[in-house]
This record gives sequence, C-alpha cells and structure tokens, in this order.
Amino acid sequence: MLETLGKQAKAASRALMGVTQLEKEWALTALADALEARSEEILAANREDVERFVAKGGSAAMTDRLTLTKERIAGMADGVRKVRDLPDPVGEVLGMTKRPNGLVIGKKRVPLGVVGIIYEARPNVTVDAAALCLKTANACILRGGSEAISSNRMVVSVIADALSSVGFPAHAVQLVDDTSRETASRMMRLNGYIDVLIPRGGKGLIRSVVENASVPVIETGAGNCHVYVEASADLAMGVDILRNAKVSRPSVCNAAETLLVDEAVAAAFLPMAAEALAPWKVELRGCPRTCAILPGIKAAEEADWDTEYNDYILAVKVVDGIEEAISHINCHSTGHSETIVTNAYQKANQFLDRVDSAAVYVNASTRFTDGFEFGFGAEIGISTQKLHARGPMGLNELTTTKYIIYGDGQIRE
Amino acid sequence: MLETLGKQAKAASRALMGVTQLEKEWALTALADALEARSEEILAANREDVERFVAKGGSAAMTDRLTLTKERIAGMADGVRKVRDLPDPVGEVLGMTKRPNGLVIGKKRVPLGVVGIIYEARPNVTVDAAALCLKTANACILRGGSEAISSNRMVVSVIADALSSVGFPAHAVQLVDDTSRETASRMMRLNGYIDVLIPRGGKGLIRSVVENASVPVIETGAGNCHVYVEASADLAMGVDILRNAKVSRPSVCNAAETLLVDEAVAAAFLPMAAEALAPWKVELRGCPRTCAILPGIKAAEEADWDTEYNDYILAVKVVDGIEEAISHINCHSTGHSETIVTNAYQKANQFLDRVDSAAVYVNASTRFTDGFEFGFGAEIGISTQKLHARGPMGLNELTTTKYIIYGDGQIRE
Repeated sequence: MLETLGKQAKAASRALMGVTQLEKEWALTALADALEARSEEILAANREDVERFVAKGGSAAMTDRLTLTKERIAGMADGVRKVRDLPDPVGEVLGMTKRPNGLVIGKKRVPLGVVGIIYEARPNVTVDAAALCLKTANACILRGGSEAISSNRMVVSVIADALSSVGFPAHAVQLVDDTSRETASRMMRLNGYIDVLIPRGGKGLIRSVVENASVPVIETGAGNCHVYVEASADLAMGVDILRNAKVSRPSVCNAAETLLVDEAVAAAFLPMAAEALAPWKVELRGCPRTCAILPGIKAAEEADWDTEYNDYILAVKVVDGIEEAISHINCHSTGHSETIVTNAYQKANQFLDRVDSAAVYVNASTRFTDGFEFGFGAEIGISTQKLHARGPMGLNELTTTKYIIYGDGQIRE
Repeated sequence: MLETLGKQAKAASRALMGVTQLEKEWALTALADALEARSEEILAANREDVERFVAKGGSAAMTDRLTLTKERIAGMADGVRKVRDLPDPVGEVLGMTKRPNGLVIGKKRVPLGVVGIIYEARPNVTVDAAALCLKTANACILRGGSEAISSNRMVVSVIADALSSVGFPAHAVQLVDDTSRETASRMMRLNGYIDVLIPRGGKGLIRSVVENASVPVIETGAGNCHVYVEASADLAMGVDILRNAKVSRPSVCNAAETLLVDEAVAAAFLPMAAEALAPWKVELRGCPRTCAILPGIKAAEEADWDTEYNDYILAVKVVDGIEEAISHINCHSTGHSETIVTNAYQKANQFLDRVDSAAVYVNASTRFTDGFEFGFGAEIGISTQKLHARGPMGLNELTTTKYIIYGDGQIRE
C-alpha cells in the first residue's frame, strides 16, 4: 500500500519534471479556488475530526488548532496564492563553466523528486506543504496526524481533483490514509521512492524520524536558543531583546531559553531583566552567581542548560566573558539561533565566527529566525542539521541540483 | 571509546573554526613534509599489513592496492600540497540582504564540523580524506579497513604529530582503532558528535551505512550508467563514446553498464558497437530485438537492466525512441551519469531536462563524472543522493552555511 503510494508519487514526480512555471501557476490557482469552492465539504469533514477529538477529551487549545472555519479555509487558499506568486527556483542554472577539453558543465536547480512530510495536528499544514511542493515541482506523500484524518482526506481529495482538472497528475499530492505508527515507520524506510523526508512536529516525532529513517532526512525544529549580554552591551537594548526573545511567543522554536550575562554587568543587568520579565511571571532558574544577585529565584540544575522549555521559564547564567559564553552555547545549544548584545566590534565578530548555530545574531532578537522574516516568502521548516539546508527553509531548499554537460564527442584520456 | 573520539573531534572542530586560511596552509605543508620525512616508518607499518594480507591469501591485485612504496608516499604528499593550494571555500559569504526592518542577513560558508568517513582498503584514502577535511576546517573521524590498520595507525600518528607541531589540535584527525563491524555500526549512530558521515567503498558498505545510520549520510558511488544512441546520432561518435564509457576503466562507477539504441539506427549501430568492443571481449547481453540483430549474443534477463557489472559486460536494449529511453533510465538507473548521443536539438534538451541523474550528458562520455574532470581540483566522492550534494563532491561540499545577522536592536512584531 505504501509502496503503491511511493510508485505513484515517483511517476507523478517524473511527469512534474516536464511542467512549466506557467502550468504550475495554473495548478496552484485551481487548487486555491477549489479549496474555497468546496469549503462546505471540507468543513463537514473537519466537524467529524473535531467531534471525535472533543469526545476523546481533547483540550480547548488543541481543539481550536484543529478546527477549520470558512475564514481559515480562505486563509489557506490565500496562502496557496502567495506561494504561487513567489519566484520559481526550478530551472535556474547556478553557473556554467567551459573545461579545457571543451565540455560545458552547468549546475541546474531541479526538483528533489518525492518529498515525504510527517506532521501533526493542524490540517492547514496539508495545504501548505502541498503548495510548496507543487511550486517546486515535487510530488509529495503527506502523513498527518490521526486527529485530522477526515479533514486531511477531504483536503487531499479536493487537491487531487483540482490537479486533475488542469491536467496535472493527481498523485502529485497523496495522503497516507493509515495513521498508525507502523506505517509511519515504514514510510521512513521507503528508499527508492522518497528522496527526502521532512518531519514537522514535536521533539518525539523528530527523534523518532532521525533514529529510524533510512531515507535522507532534514531534521527540523528543536531550539534551545541563547541571549548573551556582553559587558559592553547597551543594557536597555539587552532588556528589549531578551524580553522579545523570551515572551513574545514562548512556545516556538526561536524563543530564547537561556540568558548568559557577563559578570561585569550582571549586577546591573539582572535586576533590570527580572523586572522586565515580571509581568509575564517568567520563572528564572539561575546559576549560583545569578542567585546571589537575584536572591529568591530558583537554582538552575545541570539539565536546565539543555532544556527547551517552550514556556515562561528562563535559565540564567553569569559568565566570565565571551569565551565562556561561546563554549557554553556550543556545548548546550541545539544549533538553532543565538544572539549577542554588544557594542564591541571584536566581540561581535568573534561571536558570529565561532558560535556553531544555524542563525547567529548581533543586537537582534532570536525570534527573527523564520522563512518569512528572512524574506523567503515561505517556510517548510527550520533545519537544525548541517546537510543541504541550515536554518529557515524556503523554496530553494525544496530543490536539488543536477549537472548538465554539453559535449561534442569528448571521451576521457 | 568511540564517544571519546567523538568528544575530542567536536572539541577540535571548535578550535578549527578559529583558524585562518594561512594557518591551514601551514598545517597541510607540515603534513605533506612529515609524510615524506617519516616514510620509512610508514613503509615498515605497511609491510606488516601486506604480510598479514598475503598470509591470509589476499589476491595479487588487492595486495598491490594495499602496498605503499616510497614513490606512492611521495604521491600522497603531493596530493596534500595540491589540496593546500586550492581556493579556500570557508568564510565566503554567499549573499547578504537588508530586510525592511534594517536587519542585514548574510549566508556564510562554514565547516560542517565533524566528518566521519568509513572506507575500505587503500591507505592513501586516509591521507586524502584528512587533507580535504583540514582544508575545509573540519575535524574527521576515519574508519578504514582492517587490512590497512597498521598503515593507517602510523599515517594518522604522523598526521597528528605534524598538526601538533604547528599548533593545530592533534584530534582534528583521528582513526577508529577498532575495525570491527560493531564499532562501525556504533559510529553510524554517533549523533551529537558526527555531523556528516560519508561512506567510500563498495555497495555492501554503502547499503549498510544507509540502512543503519542515524547521523546524516551522503550516499556515494553506485553507478548503473547509460549510453543512449538516438536516431539522429553521429554513429561513429556513438561508437567512440560507448567504447570510452565501457572499457576505458570498467571497474569505476562512471563506466557505462547499459547501451540503449533507437530502433531506427539499431541495425546499423549495433554491429559497429559489437566490433568496437570485440578487442576487449566485452560480453553483450541483449534484449530480443538486439539478439535479432546480433545473433549469438547472450539474452539479457530482467536483472541485467539493474546491474552495475563493473566488468567487461554490457546490457543492450533497442528502444522505440527517446520516451522509452528516458523512462528506462529513470526506472533502472542509480542516478549517477547518463549520456545521449544525438544531433537533434530538441532530443538533447528533452534528455537533459527529464533524466533524473546527477550528471546528464549530451555527446560526451559518462567517464567525465569526477571532481578533477569537473575542475574542482579534488574529490571526496560522488553523491548519488539529492540532499546537500549531488554528483562529484569537492571542497564546497565539505562545507555548510550559517546565517549571520547584523542588527541594531531589532525585536519582532
């Protein structure tokens, strides 16, 4: 069954290699229009999911994430149109050289082929992932969570119909109908059919994919991000950046989890920071030097330095200087986003050079690590690994390259 | 023990993030000089390997591959100096943009970190891999074959001494001393220490790595390459390209394994091809239409279309035209290298567009798929997967990128 999906996806991806930019734009328009035109069917399917979820005792917050409305469907359709209007990366030639023997060698951006995406909960991810893959001429195999299975089935059937209506292969977008763990595990080992697998979801899902997959994977998401206030920092700017990085949206991966502050300014900065975070009742967990300056806060344990709280909690450590800060970050970070607040030219450069994370900032909030904020116009996830893509992934990261070589009879030797 | 190697490699890779291009050049010079200065020690260690291998009944060809001589060591040292003199990719900024909010976002080429390499037999790979990793400021963990263990130990100890002598971390290049399969398997799952694992060797090794690794892997090497002679081809050129692709070095991955020929020219071309390959006693295995034109050759079985012979054997199939040729290739190829011989503009473009392989040629031999032939000046392997690197991998492919972001107090929202 999964093999059938794989074969169909592979065949669809071959057909997509021949489509033009205009044809992809027509397909995405048809897809967006169909979502709106058939919103009643989608809403009806979604009601089944919501009722089942509520009956099982799902939380109000999760129920809200699962629930579609006419407006939310319109928002999904608009998202598809925005993806449609982005520049098309496919077909770009990234340089062409002539070799001494006359061979002309070019490197051309082409689709990945078949992209597998394993994700959780929200049905809008189904539409978003399908649109990004279609824009880059990839076929996709989507495996959503069991909570949204009725919505996902209906959405994918609407997408397939829309694609067929403009002559696109309906199998370009397929859903794994079976949401069991066993099927997910088999999907992770569908070598020969899936070119790249991208997990989008919580830590458990990502760990499971990394541990079990034999197809190439892009690891996404985990973010234990640091704000480092260096001795020369503008302390008011440090407070603004820390507050923004910690409390503007604590549940996301680019939120800060640890504050590092130079000893020289700790006594001045820490009380300012504590006061700024007080309205959000942020729980501080400090190293001994921090606790000496802010008596009454909780003492940090070793595990705190490695924890992505995703909550109103902040670990705080006083460091001797930039060397200790960099080595603490490189030791404990997940390699997502880190920022230094400083006015010292050399310290800024040192931090940019030697911190080993996907996005390294000077004097700005870590919250900017995001495909939209970086100007990509889209985001398929944030890679925390070093192969292929690192940091926010836009359309370019859904492509690979191939060498195209023009000869006139060259043979070797 | 492997964890210790991992920790040491990680620490070394942090230190390497701070080295300059000049310092890397000094280190590579010291390394090359040390190989020559201590060649007697290396030769003595190599004699142990060779004696053990011969006593175990190793073949003459394999013994030759394992054996070092003073000249071969000088060649290895020269290889290191060539790598030293290549342009340094590390630190290049691949574009920098200013966002509406004033953030300046750059994408900078940086080392991968720790590269694991699992390889077989020849001790020269040890030096080659170490030099490429040092040039790109990566630490490496090398796991060679048991046959060359004495040579590898001595070579890595010479390298470590040379690195120490110029103030480089000796752990930048480490050897896995234990050549058991269990240790190799554990190396494939050394997440948190190894950033990228590259297997260099035969099919069995690569399959085992792909199946078992949980660290990111670059799959290399398998090559079921095709030569397609299209109806409009210059048949003499077709013969030259086929002969070069098949017999100039049949044991390598960019050698051709299957000939496809259009029906319109099959009766003319196949006898020419058979005659051209006769001096090398190439065994032909044909489809029924081929056998009708070349009576007496062996009939191909279904498995032949999927076989990388690495030998003087060629599968031959007559096709109806380019559609069948492209679909045969996309179905049976390993995605390495394919060539069309044609004089038809449209056919050339169709082949370049729709064949889904790392290197797609018009009117040239597949044997050119090679880092040196492509002008990279080095090669760490040939990737047949689509993530990160596709086709010959040079120094650029041993790097990743990170985003460096310059702000002046920006916060989000």
